[in-house]
Amino acid sequence: MIVIMKKNATPVQLSNVIARIEGMGCQAHVSQGEERTLVGIIGNGRPLDRERIEQLDGVEKTMPILKPFKRASREFHPQDTHVKVGDVVFGGNEVVLVAGPCAVESIDQMREIAHAVKASGARMLRGGAYKPRTSPYSFQGLGEEGLRILAQVKKEVGLPVVTEATDPELVPLVTSHADVVQVGARNMQNFALLHAVGEAQRPVLLKRGMMSTIEELLMAAEYILSHGNDRVILCERGIRTFEPYTRNTLDINAVPLLKQLTHLPVIVDPSHGTGKWELVESVSRAAIAAGADGLIVEVHAHPEQAVSDGAQSLKPERFDALAESLRGIAAAVGRKL
Amino acid sequence: MIVIMKKNATPVQLSNVIARIEGMGCQAHVSQGEERTLVGIIGNGRPLDRERIEQLDGVEKTMPILKPFKRASREFHPQDTHVKVGDVVFGGNEVVLVAGPCAVESIDQMREIAHAVKASGARMLRGGAYKPRTSPYSFQGLGEEGLRILAQVKKEVGLPVVTEATDPELVPLVTSHADVVQVGARNMQNFALLHAVGEAQRPVLLKRGMMSTIEELLMAAEYILSHGNDRVILCERGIRTFEPYTRNTLDINAVPLLKQLTHLPVIVDPSHGTGKWELVESVSRAAIAAGADGLIVEVHAHPEQAVSDGAQSLKPERFDALAESLRGIAAAVGRKL
Amino acid sequence: MIVIMKKNATPVQLSNVIARIEGMGCQAHVSQGEERTLVGIIGNGRPLDRERIEQLDGVEKTMPILKPFKRASREFHPQDTHVKVGDVVFGGNEVVLVAGPCAVESIDQMREIAHAVKASGARMLRGGAYKPRTSPYSFQGLGEEGLRILAQVKKEVGLPVVTEATDPELVPLVTSHADVVQVGARNMQNFALLHAVGEAQRPVLLKRGMMSTIEELLMAAEYILSHGNDRVILCERGIRTFEPYTRNTLDINAVPLLKQLTHLPVIVDPSHGTGKWELVESVSRAAIAAGADGLIVEVHAHPEQAVSDGAQSLKPERFDALAESLRGIAAAVGRKL
Amino acid sequence: MIVIMKKNATPVQLSNVIARIEGMGCQAHVSQGEERTLVGIIGNGRPLDRERIEQLDGVEKTMPILKPFKRASREFHPQDTHVKVGDVVFGGNEVVLVAGPCAVESIDQMREIAHAVKASGARMLRGGAYKPRTSPYSFQGLGEEGLRILAQVKKEVGLPVVTEATDPELVPLVTSHADVVQVGARNMQNFALLHAVGEAQRPVLLKRGMMSTIEELLMAAEYILSHGNDRVILCERGIRTFEPYTRNTLDINAVPLLKQLTHLPVIVDPSHGTGKWELVESVSRAAIAAGADGLIVEVHAHPEQAVSDGAQSLKPERFDALAESLRGIAAAVGRKL
Repeated sequence: MIVIMKKNATPVQLSNVIARIEGMGCQAHVSQGEERTLVGIIGNGRPLDRERIEQLDGVEKTMPILKPFKRASREFHPQDTHVKVGDVVFGGNEVVLVAGPCAVESIDQMREIAHAVKASGARMLRGGAYKPRTSPYSFQGLGEEGLRILAQVKKEVGLPVVTEATDPELVPLVTSHADVVQVGARNMQNFALLHAVGEAQRPVLLKRGMMSTIEELLMAAEYILSHGNDRVILCERGIRTFEPYTRNTLDINAVPLLKQLTHLPVIVDPSHGTGKWELVESVSRAAIAAGADGLIVEVHAHPEQAVSDGAQSLKPERFDALAESLRGIAAAVGRKL
Repeated sequence: MIVIMKKNATPVQLSNVIARIEGMGCQAHVSQGEERTLVGIIGNGRPLDRERIEQLDGVEKTMPILKPFKRASREFHPQDTHVKVGDVVFGGNEVVLVAGPCAVESIDQMREIAHAVKASGARMLRGGAYKPRTSPYSFQGLGEEGLRILAQVKKEVGLPVVTEATDPELVPLVTSHADVVQVGARNMQNFALLHAVGEAQRPVLLKRGMMSTIEELLMAAEYILSHGNDRVILCERGIRTFEPYTRNTLDINAVPLLKQLTHLPVIVDPSHGTGKWELVESVSRAAIAAGADGLIVEVHAHPEQAVSDGAQSLKPERFDALAESLRGIAAAVGRKL
Repeated sequence: MIVIMKKNATPVQLSNVIARIEGMGCQAHVSQGEERTLVGIIGNGRPLDRERIEQLDGVEKTMPILKPFKRASREFHPQDTHVKVGDVVFGGNEVVLVAGPCAVESIDQMREIAHAVKASGARMLRGGAYKPRTSPYSFQGLGEEGLRILAQVKKEVGLPVVTEATDPELVPLVTSHADVVQVGARNMQNFALLHAVGEAQRPVLLKRGMMSTIEELLMAAEYILSHGNDRVILCERGIRTFEPYTRNTLDINAVPLLKQLTHLPVIVDPSHGTGKWELVESVSRAAIAAGADGLIVEVHAHPEQAVSDGAQSLKPERFDALAESLRGIAAAVGRKL
Repeated sequence: MIVIMKKNATPVQLSNVIARIEGMGCQAHVSQGEERTLVGIIGNGRPLDRERIEQLDGVEKTMPILKPFKRASREFHPQDTHVKVGDVVFGGNEVVLVAGPCAVESIDQMREIAHAVKASGARMLRGGAYKPRTSPYSFQGLGEEGLRILAQVKKEVGLPVVTEATDPELVPLVTSHADVVQVGARNMQNFALLHAVGEAQRPVLLKRGMMSTIEELLMAAEYILSHGNDRVILCERGIRTFEPYTRNTLDINAVPLLKQLTHLPVIVDPSHGTGKWELVESVSRAAIAAGADGLIVEVHAHPEQAVSDGAQSLKPERFDALAESLRGIAAAVGRKL
């Protein structure tokens, strides 16, 4: 960390800064510049608290040198992490398709979709039992009944399932029915939930918050990793911007950037990332071309009857065509699907 | 709600839309425009699901006519709601100051600050026992020990206290020690937590998420109100924008807008709203001038030693000067402090 | 356009609204809803002025039904527009690569880069002679000397050139040396400049402003088209968001969305869209996979000596590898490069 | 400036960086940290080009120490700059009200409004003759006829006038009729225009771009100041965010922040900053309470007939009430109006 002193900082203020740094068990390294005095802090291996320094008299600001995430960083762990879910591997050479409806509505609905998406090449089934909804008057999910349907369809169709936990106390129940537990975008900084899924030692699908930076996403992953659970799959699902034509702006830059910054697998949700099914196919191709390790796509046999997210759901036949077209893209970037 | 048909929609598609509307127990009202056919939906008193309609063939889009919040709206409840906490009233003629440190650090720290801010005119004490932090390596709060300190200082100094609950299961514990339970910005759409504080039937301080629209804030309030708990104080605390000089951009427009849209009291957090103590005083004056019902301000006797948010905390003597200057502003808008 | 009356609007207010609409030469069509009265306006073929209605007493708001752009819309002109520049066609089956340095620095620099990018498959050369720079102390471009260099290199190497005009009065000079005139992101709503390039009747590369919506981009194109100049190539180059790791957030959704909304060709600038050369290749592949008609890429033989944008410039050998990898992506989406 | 080397940077790479720095006429100052090597650059008094360094092999990133604006900074010029326009002073103790319609429509319209706002305490008249409009189909202003009306009303009513120039070549004409030339939000980075108004040596009202940072605003001012014209009045007018209820989000933080960073006067435009006349009064009070040196407010005698911006225009009687209420706020912050 570097401390930048104010232009008119006094020698006494500088001495105080140095004393504070040394009091933290670190070394101070003073550079007298043309217009400013800088103090470099040589650390003791533990994270530094910038704020403690920034308040001192005579300090203009501090600047971090190192990134704040460690376990999630590629510097710490250079090789790609492979997250295995049954015989499916996220982060390897294969591009993995996850598909299913926004919400679990009934056993028949799930069965129909599961068979269809499996036939098209999906390797995991999605479906929400607990739905975080903006309005208290919207459908909130089938809850435990939804989990039972997922477990039943999983057994019948032979696809692992991912579903969201919205409350720390639901984590044991969710993990007893599902293979992967999802932390949704709205809960990316629900730290109690991050602790709970960290402790659960089960694979986690961590979605980027709609207004969270890439660094905050990696810090959220760090919460889970710090519990010794490194089976974390990151998901870019669009961020909130000023553009009103689309529900979110899918941050395609995040895909190669995350692959550089972290060893964790990175998948993309083109359904929430666009909010319009007409855009899902193009953006899915873009995600794979950009290096994503997989996709999570909303598919519904009857989108016009879906209880939620119908506008961004593909019909099974379109999903089938999409999967087919993705094979060419995957091959062009040296991967298979 | 209005349904806009595509330019080339067929008569069969239009009939299907009408049938779907009538199947929902509503009436359809067709208008043939120059370039588009519109279908108005005359409702049956229950919220409509736009998505169910939007997926139908031939539909271009739907547009809502009514706002999605009801109990929180001024149309539903024209008079200002007064939220009483002991003898303090939020939403009345008095402008209420809430002050205290970001985090509870020790009984001595809280006692010193509490006496100081009370002397300056603060009517409620703030202090975090459970701290949501971006990094797992940062101080996470004293937890239950922090709650006990708050309860003790409350008794000694005679100020009611507000503190944050970060997990639904903490709500009973928090409400047993504190007068007002805070739902923090990162948890504004933690619906499990909103349910829990709704059921607790205690006053709630609901902070706007840094990524949330005003409508989403009111929908979050609606979750609490729908449990029959209407003691909700809203708090504008800055939103995330592209501007890097400040931690957040305080949305001053939100103050008069919320006062028009809702009957609930609205206070402002200038500390998080700016992230810099040098800006807190000016922005506090702005908030009261804009019609806020109060402020929640971070005050620390020794900001340079604060475990968090020191950079945005006022020293007690500056808070005292601020409170004094606010009296003039309050008077200028016909209120007292 | 639809007018929504306030809940408590009076019959007199409604009559005034109807009178105003009829006074504008339109028809009013009243629908009495459960909670609101709506008035549909059936137009006279000319654009309506929402504001004139929105101010009337008793009006809550107005909602447009039609999109505000006409000549740029696919409804108006269903077939793809092909913009021909010499023997290069934008908007056809071929994916077109445009490459070159941020700024023209010297004849030797341009010659070296032009030969290299042509050999790799680029079909047009870019290079800025007039540079809009945030700081008055930064290099502002070689000006007319830069234009002469571009014209000379164009002749020697046999590639058409695109360069930016930053002032309406420069347009004749720029078009006398270059094949395509660029309107840069900062000037997307410089309406005097849009008029000037519209009148010039030369191909225009119109970059989306970093702060502009897709609708505003199409309205800017509409300015040019309204002068009878329909040789407009649109360019997505990243928008400003809260994410600090990248210079801009490339809006990949914009590619398929623009292809649906408009008949104009759409290319992508992955250099400004990311700001980091390490991300340019992945994002270039994404753009082609998403359906872009081409790319404009910053290439510099010695990025570390570039006077501007070196951090986002590819070296010629990397550009060559990129072009090679793009051929596979183009083939996978049924196009050639 | 500080250069941060990559973790695995080689000694040869470090030597190259030092050589480059010294080749720029600066001194390099190496600090060996625990995990990174840093190189401080001690400058030669001229602005450094970060990009030249950032491309060198082994460099992770560079960090600026100093702010990039000089003439606009308070460090350079500690005293407040007073911009005099006739007998009106911006930046002094008096809070200055500027008022008038969005667009000049006719001599009668301007005369009526001018008399009214002068009677209420406005010290300068606003009105647009050249209107930058999103749509080519919207009213574009009366042009030179509008300038003549402004000059005539100015003479009759005795108020100086401010109006916008949208093209460098219009600046002489505008300054021959108006006292202050406005650079509008869309043109804040129209550098040709900034040069033109810098050279004109007339007072300039420089509006912040709707998606420009505070630093970019000050750099735009720097362009004007670098021509020796220091009569620049800055204007915060709202920025673009994700919030849809308001046209823009007025950045109230910018007011005290700009007053700290720069010596130039700072006024606020509550009309564009909110987009709704119902919010203008509250936000105007907030701006003065936050320390703004003045306001520029849209006032129209018949907003429902205004050719533009009617929704955000106050009627003269409301403006009169606003001015009255602002006197109390100004007094509370030690100023007069």
